[in-house]
Amino acid sequence: MEPKTKLTLDQVRGLATDVLTHSGYDAAHAGAIAGMLHRCQLDDCQSHGLFRLFMCAATMRDGKIDGAAAPRIAPSDTAIVRADARGGMSLLAVQAGMPLLIEKARVHGMAALTVNNCFHFSALWPEVEDLAGAGLAGLSMVPSHAWVAPAGGRRGTLGTNPLAFSWPRQGKTPFTFDFATSGFARGEIELYKRAGKQLPEGVAIDRDGNPTRDPQAALDGAMLTFGGHKGSALSIMIELMAGPLIDDLTSKESQAAAGADGTAPYHGQIILAFDPDQFSGGKADANDARAERLFADIVDQGARLPSQRRYAARARNLARGYVEISEGLHRDLQTLLE
Amino acid sequence: MEPKTKLTLDQVRGLATDVLTHSGYDAAHAGAIAGMLHRCQLDDCQSHGLFRLFMCAATMRDGKIDGAAAPRIAPSDTAIVRADARGGMSLLAVQAGMPLLIEKARVHGMAALTVNNCFHFSALWPEVEDLAGAGLAGLSMVPSHAWVAPAGGRRGTLGTNPLAFSWPRQGKTPFTFDFATSGFARGEIELYKRAGKQLPEGVAIDRDGNPTRDPQAALDGAMLTFGGHKGSALSIMIELMAGPLIDDLTSKESQAAAGADGTAPYHGQIILAFDPDQFSGGKADANDARAERLFADIVDQGARLPSQRRYAARARNLARGYVEISEGLHRDLQTLLE
Repeated sequence: MEPKTKLTLDQVRGLATDVLTHSGYDAAHAGAIAGMLHRCQLDDCQSHGLFRLFMCAATMRDGKIDGAAAPRIAPSDTAIVRADARGGMSLLAVQAGMPLLIEKARVHGMAALTVNNCFHFSALWPEVEDLAGAGLAGLSMVPSHAWVAPAGGRRGTLGTNPLAFSWPRQGKTPFTFDFATSGFARGEIELYKRAGKQLPEGVAIDRDGNPTRDPQAALDGAMLTFGGHKGSALSIMIELMAGPLIDDLTSKESQAAAGADGTAPYHGQIILAFDPDQFSGGKADANDARAERLFADIVDQGARLPSQRRYAARARNLARGYVEISEGLHRDLQTLLE
Repeated sequence: MEPKTKLTLDQVRGLATDVLTHSGYDAAHAGAIAGMLHRCQLDDCQSHGLFRLFMCAATMRDGKIDGAAAPRIAPSDTAIVRADARGGMSLLAVQAGMPLLIEKARVHGMAALTVNNCFHFSALWPEVEDLAGAGLAGLSMVPSHAWVAPAGGRRGTLGTNPLAFSWPRQGKTPFTFDFATSGFARGEIELYKRAGKQLPEGVAIDRDGNPTRDPQAALDGAMLTFGGHKGSALSIMIELMAGPLIDDLTSKESQAAAGADGTAPYHGQIILAFDPDQFSGGKADANDARAERLFADIVDQGARLPSQRRYAARARNLARGYVEISEGLHRDLQTLLE
């Protein structure tokens, strides 16, 4: 077990804000990004917590991002809120568009927030959970880089293309999932490589399109989607919905436009919101009880709802008032303040 | 190879209409159902073609369905079209709501058609393809019966919960998929049983929740979702979106309400439509070209787009003016006219 450093929740936010400001993000962006990192760290979501400050700093050093971009929301009388991040990080644009998304979902019954021209590095669950917090069901998707081969293919075309969904539960943490449509995360393959371990079958192909269990061959080749041709079809849907539908880049285009290694991808995002009250004809309460019976039937047989580990970490960390990160990470983060 | 009977496209529709009318469906329902069976048969989609007439007839014999139910569309100033099938088969209600769904998607940028109080037996791809035919992206889901265990579970709670998506392509058949979120279709397990074959690993558990490869033990136990915990999460999302969201039954409730074996399940349906022109800010043409580059990159590496086999069958059957069904099926269908 690696030695750990304890950070209070204020320290997490403070450290993130300091690094981001020092890196060149203005106060508005630093606040939006620090808020996201804080939420992930609170849930012990280490891969998307303070660790991501390296990517935020590298993206700024690379020079393409605008650390002071003011997002612009296009006027709209439809159910679509179009937010232009104008070359900044996605989070400030999402923050700017979210109140209007919620308002439009209540008016139209369903609504969408699209974010264009943004750098993107974050988990999707905090944004769909915010919708659940407003009593709405939320669904979000983004492309990434073309590291993933379609079913039956021989090279990377699709992104890791995550899909996140959240459903509001009265007086409870929402039902939430947020998963990559690749079988493995790219970072997991890196970990196998460092550990000198072979990959499981069926997660990657080499540069010639042949199945491989060698991590380096997989990194040189392509990952596969989860769930065979079904996962592949779903991943293509995500490319379309978060790319051509919203006038933004596919994973292949995003990769071609990418900066140096370790920088955030540049692509769009779509967030959909659904109002249970409008969809159910005003019977949201009765249907909340119906959804609870479904969840109970899942939990009663010993299965877990997605995100339960994250919610448990949140409750524990909130109660004790601090989170733990590895000492090594904490030490390395200090270098970003030099 | 089983001997085949050739039927012209008119004969397919005529036979379906005759059986449905003879079974007790009125002309409007018989027309809507026959149209669906005709489209599936045209695409050599045997499992959802004329074969389903047995289910339509059995459902009528069971006595719960109303073969003359006139669907009612609720007045709406939101993006949601709520169609009440009033205890009839879903298809006439979908037919009634579809023009309004398309109109609302163009006005609001996105829209939903929900169908309540319906019996449902049909493939979802024809409906999302109709949206693509109108230049919209379409997404549809339904629950079914609680035959599928959640990841880590020990008994059936989820339905086979299909997800269908279609994306419009200028001058081409749309990009479409329609897959069950169970790893296997229930019918496939029946086929393994009849053939005396063992199931592959990972598709089913027995009644004690243990993995099984025995088809009968699987039928007595539960199926598993495709793609492990990710497929399971997706299936739960479909339960919520096509059940509690729209004030209709979950798969477990649908199963409890079910008629005799071989009858159509009774549950709701949700169909979502997205207008690329509104979402892209009027740049649908440029983004159509972008989507085509994505498809070309998939096909160029030897991978197939979903539905290619179906589209090839459609082209061939349209060109020759007839379809082929097994002689045995054709003979058995005659008994439905007695």
